[in-house]
Amino acid sequence: MTTTPLLSAPSTAIVGFPASADVEAIVRLALAEDIGRGDLTTEATVPPNAIATAQILQKAPGVVCGLPLVNLIFKTLDPRIDFIPEVEEGSFSAERRVVARLEGPAPGILSGERTALNFLQRLSGVATASRRATELVAGTRARVIDTRKTTPGLRVLEKYAVRVGGASNHRAGLDDGFLIKENHIRAAGGIAAAVTRAQGRAAPGQLVEVEVTTLDELDEALAAGARLILLDNFNPELMRAAVALTDGRARLEASGGITHANLVEVARTGVDFISLGALTHSAGVLDFSLEVIV
Amino acid sequence: MTTTPLLSAPSTAIVGFPASADVEAIVRLALAEDIGRGDLTTEATVPPNAIATAQILQKAPGVVCGLPLVNLIFKTLDPRIDFIPEVEEGSFSAERRVVARLEGPAPGILSGERTALNFLQRLSGVATASRRATELVAGTRARVIDTRKTTPGLRVLEKYAVRVGGASNHRAGLDDGFLIKENHIRAAGGIAAAVTRAQGRAAPGQLVEVEVTTLDELDEALAAGARLILLDNFNPELMRAAVALTDGRARLEASGGITHANLVEVARTGVDFISLGALTHSAGVLDFSLEVIV
Amino acid sequence: MTTTPLLSAPSTAIVGFPASADVEAIVRLALAEDIGRGDLTTEATVPPNAIATAQILQKAPGVVCGLPLVNLIFKTLDPRIDFIPEVEEGSFSAERRVVARLEGPAPGILSGERTALNFLQRLSGVATASRRATELVAGTRARVIDTRKTTPGLRVLEKYAVRVGGASNHRAGLDDGFLIKENHIRAAGGIAAAVTRAQGRAAPGQLVEVEVTTLDELDEALAAGARLILLDNFNPELMRAAVALTDGRARLEASGGITHANLVEVARTGVDFISLGALTHSAGVLDFSLEVIV
Amino acid sequence: MTTTPLLSAPSTAIVGFPASADVEAIVRLALAEDIGRGDLTTEATVPPNAIATAQILQKAPGVVCGLPLVNLIFKTLDPRIDFIPEVEEGSFSAERRVVARLEGPAPGILSGERTALNFLQRLSGVATASRRATELVAGTRARVIDTRKTTPGLRVLEKYAVRVGGASNHRAGLDDGFLIKENHIRAAGGIAAAVTRAQGRAAPGQLVEVEVTTLDELDEALAAGARLILLDNFNPELMRAAVALTDGRARLEASGGITHANLVEVARTGVDFISLGALTHSAGVLDFSLEVIV
Amino acid sequence: MTTTPLLSAPSTAIVGFPASADVEAIVRLALAEDIGRGDLTTEATVPPNAIATAQILQKAPGVVCGLPLVNLIFKTLDPRIDFIPEVEEGSFSAERRVVARLEGPAPGILSGERTALNFLQRLSGVATASRRATELVAGTRARVIDTRKTTPGLRVLEKYAVRVGGASNHRAGLDDGFLIKENHIRAAGGIAAAVTRAQGRAAPGQLVEVEVTTLDELDEALAAGARLILLDNFNPELMRAAVALTDGRARLEASGGITHANLVEVARTGVDFISLGALTHSAGVLDFSLEVIV
Amino acid sequence: MTTTPLLSAPSTAIVGFPASADVEAIVRLALAEDIGRGDLTTEATVPPNAIATAQILQKAPGVVCGLPLVNLIFKTLDPRIDFIPEVEEGSFSAERRVVARLEGPAPGILSGERTALNFLQRLSGVATASRRATELVAGTRARVIDTRKTTPGLRVLEKYAVRVGGASNHRAGLDDGFLIKENHIRAAGGIAAAVTRAQGRAAPGQLVEVEVTTLDELDEALAAGARLILLDNFNPELMRAAVALTDGRARLEASGGITHANLVEVARTGVDFISLGALTHSAGVLDFSLEVIV
Repeated sequence: MTTTPLLSAPSTAIVGFPASADVEAIVRLALAEDIGRGDLTTEATVPPNAIATAQILQKAPGVVCGLPLVNLIFKTLDPRIDFIPEVEEGSFSAERRVVARLEGPAPGILSGERTALNFLQRLSGVATASRRATELVAGTRARVIDTRKTTPGLRVLEKYAVRVGGASNHRAGLDDGFLIKENHIRAAGGIAAAVTRAQGRAAPGQLVEVEVTTLDELDEALAAGARLILLDNFNPELMRAAVALTDGRARLEASGGITHANLVEVARTGVDFISLGALTHSAGVLDFSLEVIV
Repeated sequence: MTTTPLLSAPSTAIVGFPASADVEAIVRLALAEDIGRGDLTTEATVPPNAIATAQILQKAPGVVCGLPLVNLIFKTLDPRIDFIPEVEEGSFSAERRVVARLEGPAPGILSGERTALNFLQRLSGVATASRRATELVAGTRARVIDTRKTTPGLRVLEKYAVRVGGASNHRAGLDDGFLIKENHIRAAGGIAAAVTRAQGRAAPGQLVEVEVTTLDELDEALAAGARLILLDNFNPELMRAAVALTDGRARLEASGGITHANLVEVARTGVDFISLGALTHSAGVLDFSLEVIV
Repeated sequence: MTTTPLLSAPSTAIVGFPASADVEAIVRLALAEDIGRGDLTTEATVPPNAIATAQILQKAPGVVCGLPLVNLIFKTLDPRIDFIPEVEEGSFSAERRVVARLEGPAPGILSGERTALNFLQRLSGVATASRRATELVAGTRARVIDTRKTTPGLRVLEKYAVRVGGASNHRAGLDDGFLIKENHIRAAGGIAAAVTRAQGRAAPGQLVEVEVTTLDELDEALAAGARLILLDNFNPELMRAAVALTDGRARLEASGGITHANLVEVARTGVDFISLGALTHSAGVLDFSLEVIV
Repeated sequence: MTTTPLLSAPSTAIVGFPASADVEAIVRLALAEDIGRGDLTTEATVPPNAIATAQILQKAPGVVCGLPLVNLIFKTLDPRIDFIPEVEEGSFSAERRVVARLEGPAPGILSGERTALNFLQRLSGVATASRRATELVAGTRARVIDTRKTTPGLRVLEKYAVRVGGASNHRAGLDDGFLIKENHIRAAGGIAAAVTRAQGRAAPGQLVEVEVTTLDELDEALAAGARLILLDNFNPELMRAAVALTDGRARLEASGGITHANLVEVARTGVDFISLGALTHSAGVLDFSLEVIV
Repeated sequence: MTTTPLLSAPSTAIVGFPASADVEAIVRLALAEDIGRGDLTTEATVPPNAIATAQILQKAPGVVCGLPLVNLIFKTLDPRIDFIPEVEEGSFSAERRVVARLEGPAPGILSGERTALNFLQRLSGVATASRRATELVAGTRARVIDTRKTTPGLRVLEKYAVRVGGASNHRAGLDDGFLIKENHIRAAGGIAAAVTRAQGRAAPGQLVEVEVTTLDELDEALAAGARLILLDNFNPELMRAAVALTDGRARLEASGGITHANLVEVARTGVDFISLGALTHSAGVLDFSLEVIV
Repeated sequence: MTTTPLLSAPSTAIVGFPASADVEAIVRLALAEDIGRGDLTTEATVPPNAIATAQILQKAPGVVCGLPLVNLIFKTLDPRIDFIPEVEEGSFSAERRVVARLEGPAPGILSGERTALNFLQRLSGVATASRRATELVAGTRARVIDTRKTTPGLRVLEKYAVRVGGASNHRAGLDDGFLIKENHIRAAGGIAAAVTRAQGRAAPGQLVEVEVTTLDELDEALAAGARLILLDNFNPELMRAAVALTDGRARLEASGGITHANLVEVARTGVDFISLGALTHSAGVLDFSLEVIV
């Protein structure tokens, strides 16, 4: 909460680094789990007042993401550590490069290294995957969006990385919008009943989304007044039929079974959104290292 | 902390599910980030007292890991939800199967679904990767061990998954043993000085590990009395030379640049430990789903 | 989070008691601030194992709201205390009545009395005010909605009380939807720019709301594609003009300067939503007391 | 806890702004409930490094209370925001006026606005009500005191506002002094037994207070050695009789059924303290707004 | 907070085990610091479902104190562990004896052993020292009271142990009563000014205590209306003079330089209270052990 | 976690003040339990902006320990308080001396006095006891080590004090190494089984320690490959036999029944480690006071 000033990203785009209490909580948890009762090796071998300069290297092609977080981590450990970004948050490089430098007391730099890299490699992986997917759908009306299939505890950060990579966010959590799935429909006694109930509860700015698995259900959802509909595991042919049937009365989200291989084909069906769980759960990591240079 | 009874794994092997405060903390954080102010859709569509039965399906070949955690998640949401494991924690299946059932109030089951699956798919991915690596080195003296390159916040759980998969854990954090790296050596003024200082601080049961990058440094470390030495980015040939040079005076850990492709070759060099960051940072996820059946 | 089972309201309507971590947090804070190091008087005068029965009385006409919370408070103090609701959450009474009974260890009942009543009187006040406002607008298209002018720490509970009273909720917080106000417009460089930026960031289910202070600005907002517009401090005449100008292209929210005296007139202008800060910040309390009867 | 320096009120009177961990906790809770995962609108429309100047306006006659808290709220969001009070904490104004200015990064100012005003309007309402009641009893021996009928989570702040308004505090919580009520008397087996037990437990500086409902009980309490007695729901005539009967042997507190209408009459009966729940639970809010001026 | 039912002491005397959030906090902290990421030895050697019976032995003469806490500790680790007290909390024994038995899952019993004993040995030490001091002053008007010189984090527990041993508590903390010391007097500009200010802030049930170092200051304090006065480092002769000078106008507390050797002499001077820091900071520990018997 | 810069001890020796989250937690708990809702006396008598200078006096012979913590405590209360150490952390003095000065706002200095001294007197007591024991064994091969018999909540601080006094630490908690005791052996089915299981779970740098009560068990442990063995309650004669029997195959720790009286004799038996619970649980306190000098 006190971290806003630490988090002013070097980026010019406004994607909004999440300066929330959740971010502080996961950073504290991550530092606590790694440092525990103290960094034994550093305490035993490094004089408390030793000063060091270090640089963080990106070692593989991709989009760097997480620089404001790296700053937050080291500032949390020791406010005297200066963090100097060398590239823009969200910038892509095909070459090995220095993305940031650190200057200050050596113990904090050494103790925070692993935690900082663990965050950085993961978020950069997500941003890189998001950028790749976004580039694939360029020229279509479809926007690539994420899902709630995120790493436990890292939700807001991974969704930030998705934006840094140029893709968009679906809802942030179960409290952030309505998505009526099969089980809700059954419990409510049908699509119409479920949609009506949810719309009664929705705030002025909230559209109720409903998931359908067939064209008949799509019809039913449209009749119930749904203006946002998730097509669950439709193949591209069915998606095209759905787009035609809907005819602009609602926005459509394609979800399920979509990979890099068929992403372009899906995007060309005319759906408005394509959600990809893999953006967050299977993005892989981008390799970084920290080197003490003085 | 109060969760021990929830955590009694179905497993017969004693790998020790971490019934720690850290696990509770990440579970609470994960639930809070997903549920936030409440599950709007479920609140609007499902009667508060509706009862449901659901099953959790493993949909890809691999080792299931995280069942005690799934229990903990649903019990945290609603203590009235019964969790019935159908297979053993740590068991492998090449086929699609039901791994557990849930019975109880429907709202809690629906609200916890995504969080439970997000943990389960990740831990099972780590356990599966660990098992694969362990099988590859079978028959050699080498033990596969993990690193601190874990997902922030999930350290103790991922290290548990490594054990469930049959591999072993390196230290749990910076407070859990001494590992003297290049920067520590430089700060302390040489390998001998660093080792001596660390041994002076070490508890009776702690061996001080030191990282070396050349055979000369290995020699120096052995002379300083090190009994556990990390060979940083040695190729297999150099590893064999290191094993010969050491001649049983210390245990050796191979680290850096090791993949599935060269894992067997490394294991055959005679090193005692092979550490693999990929076990945790690049394990991928194993696909699971939750289906409400009644 | 573990409190779901405590919270199953007696109500048949699905308004969703917020079973969230926030509710637990404020209950713990409230109990801690009142009990501190312990209830000195009760510790000194009441035997630890004394058993008591008590009843909670509503002493003024109004809608009762907060019964699930009363249960949670006493269960937090002592799980052995049974809470037996005698009326439905959300029911109105013009007469004095017993709304619930408590049975169990006397110390917990006595120590929790004040905290329980402090919550109950306030939430019932909000529910009563909401019901009154809702009845006034009956027969018009307008829905009465709340604002973010809530009591610090009680946001989710007061918004629940608004629903219990039959009114609706506007967004839950700054992360729960976009509401572009004058300062945002100025910072973004105009209405069109602000709306475009926000829509680029919005999730599929989120409509961007923009605040306007004149009919010209309304025109500009409509041109920018806004589908939800807040009319800030419009008088009823201007509201009617706004409704005519909008002609169904967007939904309109009336806000500012609306009291019970002019609520009906505002509702008849044809606006879709009327937001009332007074529902939460000036609702007053409804009088309750707790009596030990055995 | 770290907030002392932020909290040095401009006031000359020593009423003691509560620089406690409780205050920090409720501020964090209030910010978290309003900001949640982030201020979407501000993130999307306001450049992270934009600078703003704003002023806080008091819009109705009353006593301003809560300025140190406003400072704390904005400093928590962004330490770079300067808070410049323009009037004294606790000062009264019958006119509209600027009470403080803010200068610094615009995002923090915009994100904290609502939370700051929600606190300020409520505390100023309590201080204003306290001042009004205090003025009414001027010239009598009676001191107006508050009760434990406070807003959950805001206890220490509302009691501070009572002092800022010139009234006095009764005990801060159940751990802060003994107040033997009817249920304690019954459990202990009579007034004498209850008073004796409580005095045995009381610290050197603690007087035991006992509640009585009749003159006979008053007699009994005096005989038991009580030196502080609460007259529960006595009418003014009975209060005068109680004052005469007590004859200086104990201090008397009038409580129950006291309103602005009869406050002066009660004060003239000769009681020492008059407790008013309405000071905190029905004080109403004082209207403030925040305007960005640059 | 949820622990009340765990804490119903076997004792018949009402000394009030502090069922507060503070107690839960220190128990969680103590368990966390000892168990950390998990009890490695128990996890590796004891089957998760093994059942054990254990007994807790008092091995030296003294007063047992802390049994409800032992119950809380084991219930926190595993609610299935039954705690069966065999003697009364607060009872004295000159002989070795079994004070309680434990039955339930072995892992929890083994993991909690050290934490439970660490609390028990310390609190029993305090209770034993308190009982000894109380017996020494029997027959005089003096009551032995504790101070704020307690172990950080254990304040409420050590003050409970003081009561279990039969001595009394001074104030619980800086918020629990006024004690004006030399520095406060200097800051306020004299004894009279300090006393007046404090009495203006005091709640109805609070007496203001003031510390004096000479008979002249005592005179001044009495003149200022102080009714509770601390005699700082007076010798017994001066104490007698102070008692005579005061002549019942105030209660007197002797403090500083009092040991077992001169305690009786001090008690006979006629002072009302004797405060002993040694009750808590130098009580020593009473030896206990835990034995698994099945 | 943010406290590293506050904690840079004046000491030249690298014993590692534990800059961990645990330390912050206990400091916050200690301040909260002492200050609670606020320092009433200081609030009532000391102007909020008064400035003071104070000094901390060591009043008895011993080793000062805890200066970085004193700094942390005052900085937590008010970052504007300057802490100026006058002697080295860990230095011994036989004379009364000033160990540190404080300058800054008087309220924070007065409110933090007792908490700071409560920590300082206890840690200095532990350091002094550790130094005494260490001096006694000088010239032998034995190292004095501590145990887990520490004050709940103060574990890492007391273990730091042990190091400051020149003694060494045994494991920090149940997660920090394996120590197989009688109950583990029984549960595992014998010494060999227990040792094997634990070694299978141990990280590369962890030696498994096993406790033995007879020479036969020692034999068995050695045969099982144990390289670190605790001799439980052996008398010095048996210890010598154990040293002879072991003949360098393992390191030996003497534990149980060791006092200052027999410490030298034990040290001369040839054991490697001597663990003393009394270092932490019976060290006594070293007397300090804080005096405001301006």
